[in-house]
Parts: sequence; C-alpha cells; structure tokens
Amino acid sequence: MSLFSFFKRNTSAPVARERLQVLLAHERTIVGGGESDLVAILREEIMAVIAKHMSVPQDNVQIKMDRGASVSTLEVDIEIPTDIAAGMRPAA
Amino acid sequence: MSLFSFFKRNTSAPVARERLQVLLAHERTIVGGGESDLVAILREEIMAVIAKHMSVPQDNVQIKMDRGASVSTLEVDIEIPTDIAAGMRPAA
Repeated sequence: MSLFSFFKRNTSAPVARERLQVLLAHERTIVGGGESDLVAILREEIMAVIAKHMSVPQDNVQIKMDRGASVSTLEVDIEIPTDIAAGMRPAA
Repeated sequence: MSLFSFFKRNTSAPVARERLQVLLAHERTIVGGGESDLVAILREEIMAVIAKHMSVPQDNVQIKMDRGASVSTLEVDIEIPTDIAAGMRPAA
C-alpha cells in the first residue's frame, strides 16, 4: 500500500493542481535518551529550503506536528497555486 | 491508519534505536506542465540540512526516489547509530 494513498482522490475532471507534501518521522527508543527536538529543528530548516524554490501564500501551507513518547512526526502539506507552478517550469 | 505504520515492528526487548525518516511527495497535474525536478532539487538540500545536525555513515542512509507521471516521491530512511544519538541529547 503506497504511503501516499491520500493522494488518490478520484477527481472527475483533470484539475490543474500542484501539491508538495513532506512527512518527517523521528523514532527514538533510547533508555534515558531524553527528549529530542530534532523534528522541530529540521522543520524550520526544511521550510526554509522549500521557500527558496517557491513563494507560496501562508494560507496554502498546513503544518502538523505530533510528539509521541518514542515517535515524533511532522506533516507539511503545500498547495502550490498553479500560476506559481507554471513559473517553476524548467527553461524550455 | 498512521502513515508510518511500518514503525510498528513488535521488537520483543526494548532495543535502543534511533531512526529518521523523510517522505516527500510532489503531485503535479498541470496540462502541458512539463516535468519538474522539484523532488530531486529538494532532496540534495534536505540531505544537507540533516547532515548539519548529525553525521551518519553512508551505509545507514537509504534513499528511494520514484518519478511517476503526476506524482514523484522521495523516501529517505536513516538509522542513527545510538552512540551518535547519545551525543545529540540536549544540554542537561
């Protein structure tokens, strides 16, 4: 089963859309390992990397972070407006 | 269903382990949109961000890239050696 099964929404008409999704999972089972902020640290820097390549309105960016006892996750979901996407096309 | 269900391996004894996983999916359905190398571009820069925070032997890093007609994905799976992980603990 593909991990990105939520991409398979059966939209009837082919809709122009562009979307970037980033999932980060940090599993840490170390006795006395203490908490690690790795996901929070990486989040800022990964967002900065993405922002270098496209400027997307803040409303189009959804970020979810979840901190569990042994697994912390980060989900970033970016709906790229198609006019911006068109601008990103590689040089012809 | 949690997208990181493969984390749920029922190891009998609590094993010290630390693992970082990054999944990137770029969906692009734009008529005449042409191919985009966004996933390949982001891959290098995201790996550079991670390398800034931990130096992991190359053998511990698995990278899978898949380029589909409308969805390209990148999976990075890093097994962090626990001695390195211990060094990453936040200052007490």
